[in-house]
Amino acid sequence: MEIPQGTVVRERFTSRVLEGNRPGDPHVRDLYLYLPPGYDKGSERYPVAWGLSGFTGRGRMLLNDNPWMPGIADRMDTLIAGGAAKPMILALPDCFTHIGGSQYINSAALGRYEDYVIQELVPFVDQKFRTLASRDHRGVFGKSSGGYGSMILGMRHPEVFGALARHSGDLLFEYCYKRDFGPAIRTFAKKGGVEGFLRSFRASPKKAHEDIGAINILAMAAAYSPNEKAPPPWCDLPFDLETGEMIESVWSRWLEWDPLVILDRHADALRKMKLLFLDCGKEDEFYLELGARAFVKALRARGIAHEYEEFEDGHMSISYRMDRSLPKLSHALAR
Amino acid sequence: MEIPQGTVVRERFTSRVLEGNRPGDPHVRDLYLYLPPGYDKGSERYPVAWGLSGFTGRGRMLLNDNPWMPGIADRMDTLIAGGAAKPMILALPDCFTHIGGSQYINSAALGRYEDYVIQELVPFVDQKFRTLASRDHRGVFGKSSGGYGSMILGMRHPEVFGALARHSGDLLFEYCYKRDFGPAIRTFAKKGGVEGFLRSFRASPKKAHEDIGAINILAMAAAYSPNEKAPPPWCDLPFDLETGEMIESVWSRWLEWDPLVILDRHADALRKMKLLFLDCGKEDEFYLELGARAFVKALRARGIAHEYEEFEDGHMSISYRMDRSLPKLSHALAR
Amino acid sequence: MEIPQGTVVRERFTSRVLEGNRPGDPHVRDLYLYLPPGYDKGSERYPVAWGLSGFTGRGRMLLNDNPWMPGIADRMDTLIAGGAAKPMILALPDCFTHIGGSQYINSAALGRYEDYVIQELVPFVDQKFRTLASRDHRGVFGKSSGGYGSMILGMRHPEVFGALARHSGDLLFEYCYKRDFGPAIRTFAKKGGVEGFLRSFRASPKKAHEDIGAINILAMAAAYSPNEKAPPPWCDLPFDLETGEMIESVWSRWLEWDPLVILDRHADALRKMKLLFLDCGKEDEFYLELGARAFVKALRARGIAHEYEEFEDGHMSISYRMDRSLPKLSHALAR
Amino acid sequence: MEIPQGTVVRERFTSRVLEGNRPGDPHVRDLYLYLPPGYDKGSERYPVAWGLSGFTGRGRMLLNDNPWMPGIADRMDTLIAGGAAKPMILALPDCFTHIGGSQYINSAALGRYEDYVIQELVPFVDQKFRTLASRDHRGVFGKSSGGYGSMILGMRHPEVFGALARHSGDLLFEYCYKRDFGPAIRTFAKKGGVEGFLRSFRASPKKAHEDIGAINILAMAAAYSPNEKAPPPWCDLPFDLETGEMIESVWSRWLEWDPLVILDRHADALRKMKLLFLDCGKEDEFYLELGARAFVKALRARGIAHEYEEFEDGHMSISYRMDRSLPKLSHALAR
Repeated sequence: MEIPQGTVVRERFTSRVLEGNRPGDPHVRDLYLYLPPGYDKGSERYPVAWGLSGFTGRGRMLLNDNPWMPGIADRMDTLIAGGAAKPMILALPDCFTHIGGSQYINSAALGRYEDYVIQELVPFVDQKFRTLASRDHRGVFGKSSGGYGSMILGMRHPEVFGALARHSGDLLFEYCYKRDFGPAIRTFAKKGGVEGFLRSFRASPKKAHEDIGAINILAMAAAYSPNEKAPPPWCDLPFDLETGEMIESVWSRWLEWDPLVILDRHADALRKMKLLFLDCGKEDEFYLELGARAFVKALRARGIAHEYEEFEDGHMSISYRMDRSLPKLSHALAR
Repeated sequence: MEIPQGTVVRERFTSRVLEGNRPGDPHVRDLYLYLPPGYDKGSERYPVAWGLSGFTGRGRMLLNDNPWMPGIADRMDTLIAGGAAKPMILALPDCFTHIGGSQYINSAALGRYEDYVIQELVPFVDQKFRTLASRDHRGVFGKSSGGYGSMILGMRHPEVFGALARHSGDLLFEYCYKRDFGPAIRTFAKKGGVEGFLRSFRASPKKAHEDIGAINILAMAAAYSPNEKAPPPWCDLPFDLETGEMIESVWSRWLEWDPLVILDRHADALRKMKLLFLDCGKEDEFYLELGARAFVKALRARGIAHEYEEFEDGHMSISYRMDRSLPKLSHALAR
Repeated sequence: MEIPQGTVVRERFTSRVLEGNRPGDPHVRDLYLYLPPGYDKGSERYPVAWGLSGFTGRGRMLLNDNPWMPGIADRMDTLIAGGAAKPMILALPDCFTHIGGSQYINSAALGRYEDYVIQELVPFVDQKFRTLASRDHRGVFGKSSGGYGSMILGMRHPEVFGALARHSGDLLFEYCYKRDFGPAIRTFAKKGGVEGFLRSFRASPKKAHEDIGAINILAMAAAYSPNEKAPPPWCDLPFDLETGEMIESVWSRWLEWDPLVILDRHADALRKMKLLFLDCGKEDEFYLELGARAFVKALRARGIAHEYEEFEDGHMSISYRMDRSLPKLSHALAR
Repeated sequence: MEIPQGTVVRERFTSRVLEGNRPGDPHVRDLYLYLPPGYDKGSERYPVAWGLSGFTGRGRMLLNDNPWMPGIADRMDTLIAGGAAKPMILALPDCFTHIGGSQYINSAALGRYEDYVIQELVPFVDQKFRTLASRDHRGVFGKSSGGYGSMILGMRHPEVFGALARHSGDLLFEYCYKRDFGPAIRTFAKKGGVEGFLRSFRASPKKAHEDIGAINILAMAAAYSPNEKAPPPWCDLPFDLETGEMIESVWSRWLEWDPLVILDRHADALRKMKLLFLDCGKEDEFYLELGARAFVKALRARGIAHEYEEFEDGHMSISYRMDRSLPKLSHALAR
């Protein structure tokens, strides 16, 4: 049986805030959008959910096809056709960088990706498309680093986003990052240090699993502890490259970006959310279910309304979880 | 720096030969095509390379985005812009089935996918697009089961395809399939037999690694040893489901589809190829480099021209190897 | 609570049949024996169970200590003290070779290990210790290659052994060996061929997992398809070293040693066993549960009495399964 | 060629200090000793090296046989015969506990294993065997938790031990333990908490890899942060069992046992060592090479003489490294 299909459109956007970014990543980028079935023929206005991709990804990847695990456009078509979700627009920005991602925040080492989304893309979409252009009808969601981005942007911009759904996002940095320090140290050493590693990484047509783990640590350092005076990727590492010993002065800068640590500063923002949905797999490879539980415990202690689901799976290939979040988001944003 | 981008188009095609196929898979399917930069504005005719996706895939997946491992459209744009490849059209058919694939052949258990490509899609594309509509300008390529499909279609249809490039394709069935019989037997047993397995497989939002291995064996049986009188998936298995003992009468039907076994029947077809390119990773998870070497040895013994490359990698995430095959194909098909 | 402890004794035995063996392995070897509690002070005669170790092992290893998985002497002490097993002697021969094992058969490439056990060690033990020196009171047992050895010696020497217990033994060679041919071919290639591999293997203080897999294939070839005219390890391989293609003339020599294939020749021997106990883990890494089932099915078809247990585990670290076999053996041999 | 063999003797020792230990582990235990070739016939006195086994082990395990990786007695025979090592006695104590080990320290949750070795076993051996009974001729060595034990006993008892060799010992607890907290939390949860886990652990004839990881964390807590008022295993855990959040008050008790943290208190002891040998594999599964480097850096900074070797291997099956340490120890202790 055929179901009505929405439309995927690509918008090329020239960013001012990304222009001249430190690593020289492109400031002209594609924004992909999903417009629900009927958009073309009607004049209705729709809520917008901003979908943030995970580390090593960009918005377009959320549309990737797989017959047994559909892309987000096909998924929305099915959810809408079945009555589970209400029609809404999806906006899928590209915040990729030379080392795999930006965590959707501003960093001297990477660029102003928070500003890019908040100051440039959101207004652009509201101007160009028939959106319900207010925080009550604008949400943000994502998985992994995209889940982190959803949380951090939601916490910092309640005036922009009125609903938030995050899957398996970075939290409780003690667990989700530290365990990769040892492997990263080893990987750097094998390639003659960070510089040699970066060179070899770039030259490789295929990124090895261990290399992705190592570049992830660099990307987090570039996002959380940038240092423009350091050599590329212009950041401080929170550990000694030879002995692994923690450098607490750097690590404490990282912690300033752990949503769990800074929750109290942003509790009001979360309290205002029409939807605050979190989930995590019980066997998350980065042990993110621990952070999720700690965060949920903290929310409960503060009386902040939320929904939390823990599911029987790990961190990878869990886009089917959006069958939970997208309907909830669509209903929250429709109100 | 911006490079000229080709266009991706989607054609919905209603198949006669797939209509009423045994498992009830769709006969209305999307064909994706890549049209090279300049196609829209010119009147030139182009060669066509048919790109066959691997098991669990369909043509559209070849377009999937990944910033560090680009989809086939971005890849072609880059190859053309850099002068490595000549402009050509790519046609990316969907031969997916309820159990993950068809091996691009006709089977009573799955449908007539060979006829679908050869009798329906090739003429359709030649009629609808500005192609150079002859075997000399029509090629076929793919990886894994798509590599198998390229080889089997090339061998059986030299009147249709004049050039062939295959990556890590199924060959020397003794190695590439037998080692998965034991694991498949175990997987079936855990789910209460083949029927229970199929039920559980369909119900699962995410397909486990071991389940993909087991459904692969079913798909191969449906392709190579179909039996319309058997229960779904309508095929005979070449082994006893309890003891694993080989059932040679069924296994010999499989071997009739091993390109290595039937090479002599199709030697003339391969001899006529303007390009016969093969490659394989030295650490292929299915030990396909052994089959590749055996095939190449047989080609050499028969004086059939070919190119063979063995590379330092395995079976997965090797789309970068198309940087080798697509340029060669484009040059062969341009002549 | 203290339980009575048996005694472990070591006998140095000079073998005539191993003298001058092709690879030059020692012909003076240690035989370890377990004498049950009370042996020293009494004059009673005891049954003897011959315990065969697995590939890469020798009898002494069965005594190895592990607080959470006791060696065979401690295990017997406990079984006897608890009343589960009756006192018996255990004899633990050393049939190790330069490439890890002998399969307990005679081979021109390795030595006459079948004769060593049957013609030399059995009489030696019966002469030196207070045994019940008849087949009715002499059993054989073992795991993996030791399980194979138990089966093959039991089948071929019903006049020597009257009871047989085997755990996870080599069977249905199609499954248990073929899947390691591909990996072995790769390993040999990396070391510049079989000769280079053997050299590097010997030089390495620690044997890598993949190297054990490769030497295992060489050892099986040396046992099943010896060829004194071939270079070390003096055997023919059943596959082409470059392409993996099967060499059926060699493979058929292997099959002549598959207990499943030769069952009919030895059915009477098995029929005479006072105990024929088999077991296998359901997730055996070598898929030996398939061979076990096939063998048991064949026993059933021939009306040969036996006991079969399938347990929830794999191939490794399953010495706890002797808590099943040793009591049964001790009772069968006591009758 | 035959080489002279030393003798292995077993001494049953009744301990006063272990009597009535909290978990009820045996206080009558076997001490295994290796006496060098010639001991029996001569009247010479020998140095003694105390060999501490790793977690889940006891002294006797160091004697375990493996044809391709000999036990410590065979190894010493070979080293002495080849002239690499001088004759010395090895004493191999059993400090195993109900949860796998004691770290060779006193703990209210486990027992007084430090006192057991220092106050009871050392005098016992000096009295019963022909030893050179002074710290100059008494050394300690071990691997993993046995390496930790060597270091901690050496640091705390320079009056007892005059030379120290440790392989891959626990160090820099931040790395070597923390990464197992997440997995342990998961394992406990699956078994209904710590108590349920312990029950299921004890009942299982075979300890799964993940269970060993979890019991290891319990054993470290029992050693470093015992709490007699807590339920079995009578200790405080340094993390929240639900959210994983660190409990710094407990963690700081652990750190009081990290040799790196307490180095300054024991610098003089290390300075007095006739041999201070450390090594670690570059790919240690517990990232112990980081701790080794940090420790060596700290030794260097304090001008404490030592030898350090980093080798190309991991943490497991590295007993061949004793071919480095045993000769050095034997020479240092002979002086």
